[in-house]
Amino acid sequence: MKKFYIAKARRLRGTPFSNRIESQGLTAYTTFNHMLLPAAFEGTEKEYLHLKEHVQVWDVAAERQVQIVGKDSAKLIQLMTCRNLSKAKVGRCYYAPLIDEQGKMINDPVILKLEENKWWISLADSDVGLYAKGLSSGLRLQAEVSEPDVNILAVQGPKSFKLMEKILGKKITELKFFGFDYFDLEGSKFFIARSGWSKQGGYEIYVENCDAGLNLYDKLFSAGKEFNVKPGCPNLIERIESGLLSCGNDFDNGDNPYECGFDKYIDIESDINFLGKKALIQISKKGIQRKLMGVKIELEQIEMMEERPLQNAGNLVGYLRSAVYSPHFKKVIGVAMIKKEYWDKKTTFELEINSKKNKGAICDLPLV
Amino acid sequence: MKKFYIAKARRLRGTPFSNRIESQGLTAYTTFNHMLLPAAFEGTEKEYLHLKEHVQVWDVAAERQVQIVGKDSAKLIQLMTCRNLSKAKVGRCYYAPLIDEQGKMINDPVILKLEENKWWISLADSDVGLYAKGLSSGLRLQAEVSEPDVNILAVQGPKSFKLMEKILGKKITELKFFGFDYFDLEGSKFFIARSGWSKQGGYEIYVENCDAGLNLYDKLFSAGKEFNVKPGCPNLIERIESGLLSCGNDFDNGDNPYECGFDKYIDIESDINFLGKKALIQISKKGIQRKLMGVKIELEQIEMMEERPLQNAGNLVGYLRSAVYSPHFKKVIGVAMIKKEYWDKKTTFELEINSKKNKGAICDLPLV
Repeated sequence: MKKFYIAKARRLRGTPFSNRIESQGLTAYTTFNHMLLPAAFEGTEKEYLHLKEHVQVWDVAAERQVQIVGKDSAKLIQLMTCRNLSKAKVGRCYYAPLIDEQGKMINDPVILKLEENKWWISLADSDVGLYAKGLSSGLRLQAEVSEPDVNILAVQGPKSFKLMEKILGKKITELKFFGFDYFDLEGSKFFIARSGWSKQGGYEIYVENCDAGLNLYDKLFSAGKEFNVKPGCPNLIERIESGLLSCGNDFDNGDNPYECGFDKYIDIESDINFLGKKALIQISKKGIQRKLMGVKIELEQIEMMEERPLQNAGNLVGYLRSAVYSPHFKKVIGVAMIKKEYWDKKTTFELEINSKKNKGAICDLPLV
Repeated sequence: MKKFYIAKARRLRGTPFSNRIESQGLTAYTTFNHMLLPAAFEGTEKEYLHLKEHVQVWDVAAERQVQIVGKDSAKLIQLMTCRNLSKAKVGRCYYAPLIDEQGKMINDPVILKLEENKWWISLADSDVGLYAKGLSSGLRLQAEVSEPDVNILAVQGPKSFKLMEKILGKKITELKFFGFDYFDLEGSKFFIARSGWSKQGGYEIYVENCDAGLNLYDKLFSAGKEFNVKPGCPNLIERIESGLLSCGNDFDNGDNPYECGFDKYIDIESDINFLGKKALIQISKKGIQRKLMGVKIELEQIEMMEERPLQNAGNLVGYLRSAVYSPHFKKVIGVAMIKKEYWDKKTTFELEINSKKNKGAICDLPLV
C-alpha cells in the first residue's frame, strides 16, 4: 500500500501535545474535527498488543467539545438526540446518538452535564456546533454555543488505574464508569472522566490549562515507567474487536440509529421532544432492512477509502465500512452494513479486491 | 521539518480520482470536508511555477456541495450570508461569507443558483450542511438540505482555456467569469463554471457521473500533452500571492467578515434578513480593531500548525495565520491578522521561531 504524507496547515490545528508526540516516535496522523489526531507510532499491531497489557497516554485533543450554556441548554441538547436526557445528572457522561430531522445520524458523542445549565458535547468528527447554532438561532433559544479551549488526554489500558492512582491518589479509583469530577495535582485542577475510546479501561482528562496539561503529560510518562507507559492513539484493531463504532467510518448521515444498533439509546415512547422523532417512529414501525454487524475475512491486509461491496453468489450482502488485520483472529476483521436477508450468522460472502475474491463470514459485534 | 504519513480510512473519503492522482506522483494529502484533497506532487514551488505558465488538473472533489432545494431555499441561503443575494441570477456563481448570529465567519463558499428554488453551496472546510439543517428545522422552512454526489475537477492555469476549447469546443471560451452552464462531451453532460481557487484562470467541472468524469479526466491528460498539462492542487504560494483567503487558515469562527476584508460582500443597508445582521451593524458602528493583511518575512522556510505572534519592540502587532516560502519574493510570505495601530504599511515586526527572531514587514493583499 502506497503511503502519503500529510500536509500541515493551521486549518488542521495542532494540539498542545503535538510537539511531545512528534518527538516520541509518531509516524502518522489523521484529522478529526479540523485537528490533528495521532494515528500511529510503532504500528497498529504492536500498539494493540501493548494497549491490552499496559497503559498508554493518548493526545485526543481532537475530540473537541461543544459547550452549551443557558436556560434553554437542556432543551437544545435534547432536540439533537433521541436518547432521553430528561433525568441526566450533573457529574455524569451520556453516550448519545445525534440525529437530524430525517432521523439520520449526525454524530455519536459523549454528552457531559457539568451544571444544570452547562453541558459539553465531546464530539466524534462533525461540526455539531454549527448544527446547534442553526437550531438555537432558528428557535430563538437562550443557549450559547461555543468551542471551549479544552484538550483531552486519554489514559487507557489495564494499568491506567494504577498509574492514575500513583499520580492523583486513591480518590481517582473511586470514580465510577462514565462519572467525572475535578481532581487536584500540584495546585492545578483537572476535570477527569472515567471513559475513553477503548474497552481496556481508563480515563479522559479534560485539560483546560495548557501549561498544567503539559506538566501532567510529562508526569504521566515519568511516573508511568514502572507500568511500561507508551504514547498511543485510538486503536483500529482494539476498537473493532470491542465493537466501538466510528462516526464517518461505520455510519454516516445516510444511516439511522436503529441500523447502527443504538436501540437502547432511542426513546420514542416518552414525551421528550427531539428532531427526527416522527421519522424514527416511522422507521420503528416499518422495521429496518439492514444493520451494522461484524465480519471476518480471509485476508492479511486491507486499506479502506470508501465502503466496499460484499457479495454472495452475485447478490449484494452489504457493504464493508471499516476493516483491519487482527493478530488475534489472524484475519481481517471489520464492521459492515448487512442486508436483512443475510443477518443469519452463518452467511458467507466474497469481497473482491484487485480482481481477487476473498471469502468472509458475518458475525456479531463485539467480535468474539 | 519532520514529515508524517496520513492514515487512510473511510471517514476521510477518497474521491473518484484518488487512484488516478496516486499513480500520477502524488506525495501528500490534506483533508477537507471529511475528504482527501491532494496537497503535493513534485513540490509546492515546482507546481507553482508550472501553474503560472501551463495548465493543471486538480482533484478538488473535497469542495463538497450543500444542495438546498425547495420554496424556502433562497430564504435559507440568505439567512446564512451577509451578501445580498436577492437579485441572484440562475447560471451565476456568488462568492459569499457565511456568518453566525454573532456575525462571526463560518465559511466562504461560492454559491451557485441552479434554478429558482435549487442552489449549491460549494464549500470551504466546515459542515455548512449541519448549520443549514439546524436553521431549516428550527424555522420549519420548506428547504431540503443534502450533499449531492458531485465531485469537482478544476482545470487551472493560463493554458486551461486552450485545453478546454480543444476538448469541449469554442462555446466553453464564451463562458464569463463566475458564469456556469452545461456542456456536452461524447454524450455526457458536464456542469462547468469559469471559476477556481487560483488567479491563473480556468474552470471547475462539477462531475455528477463518475464514469464520465474519469473518461474526461483521462481526456484532459491525453489532449493536454501539447499544453504541458500536469496533475496539481490548490497552491499555497500562488493563493497567498494572489490574496485568496483560506477558511480555517486565515480566518475562523473568531473573526468577522469586516476583519477579513469582505466589506464588498456585506449588505447591512438594505432590508434583507440574515443572521448576524444586528451584530454586523454594531461592529460597523464601532469599527474594527484588526484586519487581515499580507506580510513578508526574512525566512527561507516555515511550517504552520497554529497562529504565531508577531512582535514589535515587545508589543503584539498581530498573528501570522498562513505562510509559505515564495520563490518570487525570495522570502516567506503570509497572511496575518494585524492590530489597527500597525496598519501603516511601513511597520516592521519580528517573528520568533525556535528562539531566533526573524524580521518582517506588513504589506497589502494581494501581495505585490
